[in-house]
Amino acid sequence: MTSFASEIEQAIATVRADVARLHAELVRYGLVVWTGGNVSGRVRVSAEGDRDLFVIKPSGVGYDHLAPANMILCDLDGAVIPGTPGSDRAPSSDTAAHAYVYRNMPEVGGVVHTHSDYAVAWAARGEEIPCVITAMADEFGGPIPVGPFAIIGDDSIGRGIVQTLRGHRSRAVLMQNHGPFTIGVDAADAVKAAVMVEDAARTVHLAREAGPLIPIPQEAIDRLYQRYQNVYGQSADTRR
Amino acid sequence: MTSFASEIEQAIATVRADVARLHAELVRYGLVVWTGGNVSGRVRVSAEGDRDLFVIKPSGVGYDHLAPANMILCDLDGAVIPGTPGSDRAPSSDTAAHAYVYRNMPEVGGVVHTHSDYAVAWAARGEEIPCVITAMADEFGGPIPVGPFAIIGDDSIGRGIVQTLRGHRSRAVLMQNHGPFTIGVDAADAVKAAVMVEDAARTVHLAREAGPLIPIPQEAIDRLYQRYQNVYGQSADTRR
Amino acid sequence: MTSFASEIEQAIATVRADVARLHAELVRYGLVVWTGGNVSGRVRVSAEGDRDLFVIKPSGVGYDHLAPANMILCDLDGAVIPGTPGSDRAPSSDTAAHAYVYRNMPEVGGVVHTHSDYAVAWAARGEEIPCVITAMADEFGGPIPVGPFAIIGDDSIGRGIVQTLRGHRSRAVLMQNHGPFTIGVDAADAVKAAVMVEDAARTVHLAREAGPLIPIPQEAIDRLYQRYQNVYGQSADTRR
Amino acid sequence: MTSFASEIEQAIATVRADVARLHAELVRYGLVVWTGGNVSGRVRVSAEGDRDLFVIKPSGVGYDHLAPANMILCDLDGAVIPGTPGSDRAPSSDTAAHAYVYRNMPEVGGVVHTHSDYAVAWAARGEEIPCVITAMADEFGGPIPVGPFAIIGDDSIGRGIVQTLRGHRSRAVLMQNHGPFTIGVDAADAVKAAVMVEDAARTVHLAREAGPLIPIPQEAIDRLYQRYQNVYGQSADTRR
Repeated sequence: MTSFASEIEQAIATVRADVARLHAELVRYGLVVWTGGNVSGRVRVSAEGDRDLFVIKPSGVGYDHLAPANMILCDLDGAVIPGTPGSDRAPSSDTAAHAYVYRNMPEVGGVVHTHSDYAVAWAARGEEIPCVITAMADEFGGPIPVGPFAIIGDDSIGRGIVQTLRGHRSRAVLMQNHGPFTIGVDAADAVKAAVMVEDAARTVHLAREAGPLIPIPQEAIDRLYQRYQNVYGQSADTRR
Repeated sequence: MTSFASEIEQAIATVRADVARLHAELVRYGLVVWTGGNVSGRVRVSAEGDRDLFVIKPSGVGYDHLAPANMILCDLDGAVIPGTPGSDRAPSSDTAAHAYVYRNMPEVGGVVHTHSDYAVAWAARGEEIPCVITAMADEFGGPIPVGPFAIIGDDSIGRGIVQTLRGHRSRAVLMQNHGPFTIGVDAADAVKAAVMVEDAARTVHLAREAGPLIPIPQEAIDRLYQRYQNVYGQSADTRR
Repeated sequence: MTSFASEIEQAIATVRADVARLHAELVRYGLVVWTGGNVSGRVRVSAEGDRDLFVIKPSGVGYDHLAPANMILCDLDGAVIPGTPGSDRAPSSDTAAHAYVYRNMPEVGGVVHTHSDYAVAWAARGEEIPCVITAMADEFGGPIPVGPFAIIGDDSIGRGIVQTLRGHRSRAVLMQNHGPFTIGVDAADAVKAAVMVEDAARTVHLAREAGPLIPIPQEAIDRLYQRYQNVYGQSADTRR
Repeated sequence: MTSFASEIEQAIATVRADVARLHAELVRYGLVVWTGGNVSGRVRVSAEGDRDLFVIKPSGVGYDHLAPANMILCDLDGAVIPGTPGSDRAPSSDTAAHAYVYRNMPEVGGVVHTHSDYAVAWAARGEEIPCVITAMADEFGGPIPVGPFAIIGDDSIGRGIVQTLRGHRSRAVLMQNHGPFTIGVDAADAVKAAVMVEDAARTVHLAREAGPLIPIPQEAIDRLYQRYQNVYGQSADTRR
């Protein structure tokens, strides 16, 4: 085995372990029920991203039974890599959407999808979440946008995610009538965004049902977002 | 013991274990309190179903004390089979309703009843849950219907369930002023439906209290339902 | 030690164990935070109840630190019995209210008080919970009533509980601006009532915020209540 | 080491252990998600408080990874004490606000900040929580006030907390569009206040969304507050 191949193997093993482990965070924060929801993580092979791979959850398998060895390795067209661990199972039914995001957003290293209840509630009304709390300004830099109605069967979900999030500060999109998809520099970052979008969706829902909200001035939102993205946490490695 | 009798014994043991274990899912998802709620599973004896048995929870026993050996074996009239493990206890007070469903819907292999809060809230208004999120289209193929007001004492609850669900895509019915009953190909499938009906009841409740909902076109609901019932998951065995 | 004294000792030990253990149910069902809430259980000494004792939680002690040995034994005036385990600590600040109930309702064997959120919400409006779900009819036989505004310092809380619940089907009262008190044949029964009153408070709150409720006919409420009180469960011993 | 220095070391060790342990209470009561929220505790060095130290959580570190040794020791300007355990990491991004409180309120021994959802919802409307339940009268002696809008970057958050809480009965302030800060005689007391402010925020939210609230007479609020602050619990040491 060449040293390069060995490095790839090591990277795959790390992402398999991260993705398996991070599914437990979806359970911990109550974002999923039964076998719903999925996390994926990119395996970087080339600087351009065009030869990369990603690791994703198998379809319809319960959260008690997820382990590195049954995560599924795919190429950026969403095809399972034959002969790898887990390749005898079908990948998540949302694999095509994840693949589309990885193909079209080389900076993205992780994607998460859930049906978390408050986020889906905003999505069922096709309504963006206004940025009225400082935690949202920190994390998302403004409102959390809505993406188009799209159903499984072609590239339309992936396209809707990319069109909405490209160039947007938010790492989360609420796909109409469906639910949130989040992206991040890696799988952990996308999971954090999935946790924070539900928290924001819940808090702003509760706030608004009891009376009018006080807006945060745009200049304050900008300052909070800049600080949080650059200063918060311990270092670039552990920032999120 | 003939080989056929031995097969039946084995099937009973499997259903006892499944039914005991699946009650823990009702607790995990917060669908029950104290001793409320019940799961049953059919033991297939004949192809026509007329000689079948089913296994159900004992009445008024706490969720910490459920084990295969104290589940109760009944015939399709709801009568406890004497001399079998657990037969010294009374079966769930909803046994007659479960029995009625098994007698009249041979395709049903599992029945679940809970008082999960959001589903009961829709039931207290006698209002069906509209299908405005794709997860409901996947799972239930449309709205979740309401069944008639009926109280314990005769066949009226069982009859209301069967009349509402026969020929309906939904595996869940909200019995008016009472709560959800769900059916499935086996007990696990009916438990999944009980989890998903509460999730749908909660999400649509939250969505609607904050403003008007966007309907999903019927054609999209149909496509989602067809795909999910045929493609989702690993195989026919693990599909749900 | 006479045999009678020995029986009393045994009864005290049993109630201490029950009361300590049952506090964990308040935590499990989310009815209490920090050191709030309390359970007590009567120790039957005389048939008339006038010489009875009861066991109650110490004041301001966390739920992780409750054990049979630090529960506190009191007489029916609420005075701590000197020299008994736990008697070096102050009993729950609600001890006077519990004592008043035991003095004036000889049939009561357990009392529970919590600040569970939905029940307190109804109490803050001084509004009884209407009986629109069959589980309430089973358990409480009708609406859950509101008691008067009363504050700690004299017998007014105990008096309000007794005036409201004496002769009432409901084992729960919502003391105005304060919260629920429940009674039962023993401590476990009163804890069950505390769990069910919060569940009813939550479900009816959710139901009503989305539209008009369908009433249950009085005759059906009566039948449900009669059946549940007499038939449900395994026997008189395990009925609740 | 002088005896005085040894006493300080002992006090630091105790506060490190308390602060690390108390973060778990924020998780237990659902007040925080991911790495959000923080607890600090003062180390008393001088009677005047001007030479005191405090211990606080590191920035952006998960709740599963908090231990006494990675808590961070700071002076009252918020500067990390070099060469002490954890001093290689950045302290919580809210450290300046905690420091400001300790500098300006010598009686305060603990500070807590969370983004608990219901409290943040009131903060997003800039609305104080009215005192309509006896538990609030006990704990906070009246309404829970709102503080000014202020963002990280200078002393404005700390100043807003101190201006609002100095001379106020409430140990909790809802900083507008941001969230609750609580203070206490020590870290445990401030954590208790953080738990109780969310409980009050949730209960009063639920109560008010269903109809008009009954006010509690001021005289009753005063009596409840006086009693609870002086009588409740076991002694001055364990009072909270």
